[in-house]
Amino acid sequence: MSRSPGRKQENHKISRELFVLTYGALVAQLCKDYEKDEDVNACLDKMGYSIGIRLIDDFLARSAVKKCRSYSETADVIAQVAFKMYLGVTPSVSCSNTTGNEFSLILDKNPLVDFVEELPAERASLCYCNLLCGVIRGALEMVHLAAEVSFLQDRLKGDAVTEIGITFLRKPEDRKHRRN
Amino acid sequence: MSRSPGRKQENHKISRELFVLTYGALVAQLCKDYEKDEDVNACLDKMGYSIGIRLIDDFLARSAVKKCRSYSETADVIAQVAFKMYLGVTPSVSCSNTTGNEFSLILDKNPLVDFVEELPAERASLCYCNLLCGVIRGALEMVHLAAEVSFLQDRLKGDAVTEIGITFLRKPEDRKHRRN
Repeated sequence: MSRSPGRKQENHKISRELFVLTYGALVAQLCKDYEKDEDVNACLDKMGYSIGIRLIDDFLARSAVKKCRSYSETADVIAQVAFKMYLGVTPSVSCSNTTGNEFSLILDKNPLVDFVEELPAERASLCYCNLLCGVIRGALEMVHLAAEVSFLQDRLKGDAVTEIGITFLRKPEDRKHRRN
Repeated sequence: MSRSPGRKQENHKISRELFVLTYGALVAQLCKDYEKDEDVNACLDKMGYSIGIRLIDDFLARSAVKKCRSYSETADVIAQVAFKMYLGVTPSVSCSNTTGNEFSLILDKNPLVDFVEELPAERASLCYCNLLCGVIRGALEMVHLAAEVSFLQDRLKGDAVTEIGITFLRKPEDRKHRRN
């Protein structure tokens, strides 16, 4: 009485809805665990960091992306390759300062909040998607790029778009100088 | 200084690795929260149930699956359509009793444990993937099929395969009789 679908091909592509709902369960659990939004945000960031330092290998293997030559190229790869690969969306990228180390990823639509109507009043400071900041920070660290990553705007909080800010902390030139 | 990728097409397909690692973070958090494996298992099942009752709409819309005419057909749809869609794998299905209401989904490879080496000794009773049982139970309930769903074998516990048992609790015929 056994039916097998024949050769079981492995397919790394999945529909994202189970992920989005599971992420919601994680945030809900942390809201049970921690009274203060700041603690939930910090925990999500920390979890994301641990994920990022592991996910980078998968990303480099699967994307076949070569070494980026500039912060600008790195920001583009995060938006156009990594976000596409793991969240199915492509944020637009803008550079926000003249020294060229601050970038914004702007999401018109954030799939991670697909099933979230709004934040409860008592959770007004929650950065619901803060895991993503940690993931980006962790993954960048593994390719020797220190960065600060945080939400600058969030549609869940009434902003027009969702904006993730990435500030690269040292320029490659700096590192080169230090080596010489 | 803004670069937009042009028309931002939405793509529901994603690589599953971020999901798998996020799921790991959820289980790890629950292991911090609850001392007893049984409590973690129950919590995962409960979370999964809440996810299943919401995911079913997405599944029906996206799969365009028609009403199943038998338990056997339902089990096949879960394995060949739902697992494929949300986890990227297709378990084989076998019916395990003569009355035809008990089925096993057998996974040679379970992507949810991709980054898990083994369960820690003090977590020997943990059903790491118990969320899936809840998801299946919740989704089935929403299409008026009561079922018990649990792990019968688990490669994480040294079994040769991972096996999820589904027992449908009432036959459609029973319900028909009751209505008449």
